[in-house]
Amino acid sequence: MAAEPLTPRSPRVKAARKLHRRASRTSARRFLAEGPQAVREAAGLADCLIEVFAEPSAADRHPDVAAAVAAAGVPWTLVDDAAMGALAETIAPQGIIGVCSFVDAELDHIPADARLVAICVDVRDPGNAGVVIRCADAAGADAVVLAGTSVDPYNGKCVRSSAGSLFHLPVSIGVSVDTVADWCRQRGLRLVAADAGGASLDHEIVSGRLAAPTAWLFGNEAHGLSARHAAAADTVVGIPIHGRAESLNLATAAAICLYASAHVQRG
Amino acid sequence: MAAEPLTPRSPRVKAARKLHRRASRTSARRFLAEGPQAVREAAGLADCLIEVFAEPSAADRHPDVAAAVAAAGVPWTLVDDAAMGALAETIAPQGIIGVCSFVDAELDHIPADARLVAICVDVRDPGNAGVVIRCADAAGADAVVLAGTSVDPYNGKCVRSSAGSLFHLPVSIGVSVDTVADWCRQRGLRLVAADAGGASLDHEIVSGRLAAPTAWLFGNEAHGLSARHAAAADTVVGIPIHGRAESLNLATAAAICLYASAHVQRG
Repeated sequence: MAAEPLTPRSPRVKAARKLHRRASRTSARRFLAEGPQAVREAAGLADCLIEVFAEPSAADRHPDVAAAVAAAGVPWTLVDDAAMGALAETIAPQGIIGVCSFVDAELDHIPADARLVAICVDVRDPGNAGVVIRCADAAGADAVVLAGTSVDPYNGKCVRSSAGSLFHLPVSIGVSVDTVADWCRQRGLRLVAADAGGASLDHEIVSGRLAAPTAWLFGNEAHGLSARHAAAADTVVGIPIHGRAESLNLATAAAICLYASAHVQRG
Repeated sequence: MAAEPLTPRSPRVKAARKLHRRASRTSARRFLAEGPQAVREAAGLADCLIEVFAEPSAADRHPDVAAAVAAAGVPWTLVDDAAMGALAETIAPQGIIGVCSFVDAELDHIPADARLVAICVDVRDPGNAGVVIRCADAAGADAVVLAGTSVDPYNGKCVRSSAGSLFHLPVSIGVSVDTVADWCRQRGLRLVAADAGGASLDHEIVSGRLAAPTAWLFGNEAHGLSARHAAAADTVVGIPIHGRAESLNLATAAAICLYASAHVQRG
C-alpha cells in the first residue's frame, strides 16, 4: 500500500521548510532546489541531492526527473498540496522540490587549467547572481566566484534563476577580493575588471588579449567596483555605451564580457 | 503660501493612480514613470512629461530632476507620504513620479537610416522587455519593436527596468511579426532570428555579415521563436552554448546579439 502523502505537519517537511532561512541553511549545509529542471540537474551531481518532495502527479508529468532521481538512488517522497505550498517559494510551484547538500567549491578545487572565470564582488540581488552563474555556464566558464559580501547562492531565487547551472560548474563563496586576486595571479589568470571607465571592450576583442586565460571581475549592481578593487585587476575594460543608456545591468554586462572572451578563446 | 501636499483623496492623485491598470493607460494614453531617473529622462523628451508628483523633500534630494522638469515647463506638485505610497508600485519609492504621454512610435517613424533594430516577439515579462530596451539603447540600436502579443511597455516594471531608455529610442508596439518582417524588407534591414538551432553567432561575427543593417528577432522567454516566425527571417543565428546550460535568458541573449552587431558595425 502506498504511503499517504506527507502533510505540512510532517517533521521532514517542517525541517525542509526551515531551509528557506539562510541561518538554517548554513547550519545544515543544505538548501532547497525548486522545480523539475533544478532537481534533475542536482540528481546528476554526485553526493548533492538528498531527498525529493513531490506532488503525487509530478512523476507522471516529469518522467525524466523521476528517472534521474531514481538513478541517483535518492528517495522520492510524496507530499500533499499544502505541504508543497509550504515548501515552495514560487506562486506556481511545479510540484517537485529537492533537498540538496551545499555544492560550493574551495578556490583550490577549481580545475588548474581554468581559462575563463567570472568573479562577482558584493553582488546583492540573488536573481542577478543566478543569471551570472547561468551565463558563465553557457559561455563555457570554468568557475564562478561570489566574492566579498555577495548574496548567498543557496537563496531560492538564485537557485531558480541559475536554471540548473548552479549544479554545472564550481561556485566559490566567502572569499575576499584580495584572496581571489592572489589566486588569479598564482593560476596565471589575467584579472580583467569590468568597469565603465575602462578601455573599450571592442579594442580588447580586436587586440587578441582576451585569448589569455581570463578572470572577469564584476562589481555590485548599484555601485560597480570600488577604485581599490578595480586597481587590484591587471586591466580595466568597459563595455562601450553607444546610445544614451547610463549603463547596463550586471547580468547583461557579464553576459557580454564572458561571451566576448568565449568568442576570442574559442571562435 | 505654499500649497499643502496632495493627499490620496485628491482627484488628481486618484486619476494618476488609475494608470496602474493597463485599461486605464490605454484609454488615457498616459502612463506613470517612477523614480528620479525615469522622470529626468521623460522631461528630456518633447511632449512626453505631463505632470510630476513629488514628496516635499524630493527637489532637494534630486535638484537635477527638479531643474529638468522646470526646464520642460512641467508642473511639480507636492504630495504627502500616503499619496506617494498610493502612486508608487515599488516598496521603497524614491519620492518622484511622473505622468507621461505614450511615447511609442509607428514603424514609419523609425528613422530611415536605422542600422540596428531589436524585435521581441510575444515577450511576456515586463522586466525582460525593459532590460531589452535598455540593452538596445546601450548598444546604439535605432529602435525596439515589441511585436505580436508582447507585454505593454508602459507596465511599471517595464518602465523601471528600462532605466530611462524607454525615453531614448523609438519603441513600436502592436504590430504582427509579418508586418515587421515586411517593414524590414522594405527598409533593407537583414532580419536575423536568434534561435538555438541556428548557425553559430561566432561564425556570423567572423563572416562580417553583421556589418549589414540588421534587425534581430527574439522569441518568447519560455517558447522561443515559432518555426513560422524563424522562417520569416533571412537567417537564423544561435548563441553557442559552450557549457551545460540549456539556454540563456531573453535579456542576456539579446545583449550578446545586439553587442555582437554593434562590435561588427562600429568596432
